Amino acid sequence: MSESSERDERHRQRMQRKKAVVDEKIAQAREERGLLLVLTGNGKGKSSSAFGMAARALGHDMQIGIVQFIKGAASTGEEHFFRRFPEQVRYHVMGAGFTWETQDRQDDIVKAQAAWAVAVELMRDESVALVVLDELNIALKYGYVQLDQVLADIAARPSHQHVVVTGRGAPPGLIEAADTVTEMGVVKHAFKAGIKAQKGVEF
Amino acid sequence: MSESSERDERHRQRMQRKKAVVDEKIAQAREERGLLLVLTGNGKGKSSSAFGMAARALGHDMQIGIVQFIKGAASTGEEHFFRRFPEQVRYHVMGAGFTWETQDRQDDIVKAQAAWAVAVELMRDESVALVVLDELNIALKYGYVQLDQVLADIAARPSHQHVVVTGRGAPPGLIEAADTVTEMGVVKHAFKAGIKAQKGVEF
Repeated sequence: MSESSERDERHRQRMQRKKAVVDEKIAQAREERGLLLVLTGNGKGKSSSAFGMAARALGHDMQIGIVQFIKGAASTGEEHFFRRFPEQVRYHVMGAGFTWETQDRQDDIVKAQAAWAVAVELMRDESVALVVLDELNIALKYGYVQLDQVLADIAARPSHQHVVVTGRGAPPGLIEAADTVTEMGVVKHAFKAGIKAQKGVEF
Repeated sequence: MSESSERDERHRQRMQRKKAVVDEKIAQAREERGLLLVLTGNGKGKSSSAFGMAARALGHDMQIGIVQFIKGAASTGEEHFFRRFPEQVRYHVMGAGFTWETQDRQDDIVKAQAAWAVAVELMRDESVALVVLDELNIALKYGYVQLDQVLADIAARPSHQHVVVTGRGAPPGLIEAADTVTEMGVVKHAFKAGIKAQKGVEF
């Protein structure tokens, strides 16, 4: 055999072994149920990832609920976009802006509580397959909503419903309760190099 | 003042100081240009995040190109979804499946090279605002496409165009060239607890 075809053959054998391992893992993963996913950490991609799952779920003709706990300064691309599907997506922007913009703790609490009430309504609806709770971790961090209540309401949802929670600093109790948790770490960020938040990337 | 209103006042003062710091950082971030974003690591959320950015960009009526270097086993929700917008999204599934499924190195190389040719075409088009190169890192890892060529073609794109690269094991040279890099770490993953990959979440 030539050197190249030997390499191809070694590749084939290695991939055959890998396939056996992967297939075995897939065979062992049998359970299907609604997941609690938490996307946390300081890196870029937490909310984008939740919105990507929402797009994916739309592709499967699922019903989706989205609650944004912190309203950004600018009207966002994701909001414009998901509002185009009113029959499939219930989109609620409930927060009052970043806490350092409002500087009003009592008003932040009232708005976060109202947002939670909407989240609970979505989580009581059997027809909703995916609920995105965007930046809920921030509301938890500031104590605007209580973790015990949040965990109890999430646990009481329909068994097939997926819930995705985003935001920095997910509390340990939420991580404990979750099925899948990703910590998004910053390796580098353009903003720190003096580049503005830009349309289509950050909002 | 009551204890509660004292707490509110301390909150207000702390948030006022935080706002000054945030505002200063925003003022310093003046540059606008196309970014190279890399989403890597073993955690869930890399491709979802890229698709979330695509949804966001659609909300801003931008033109988008998506190239999937590794075709998943199942027809995916994101593919179904983004194909609904043929006037805004050019969607290409070019890969031949996971390398351990094909077990054919020569065929994988041919398909990865063809995928790269499509990526280059998108990156030469001034009208495309965002290009998603999904699982390119896998093709790089196996040497199906060459890093030097990839970096040169990315560097030659229009100055306003954003490029998002996903996949485990981003090579150091790509991280070096990128503006924003997120490493997605697994804190926990439902699959390891015996739960199947599910519609709307993983595909």
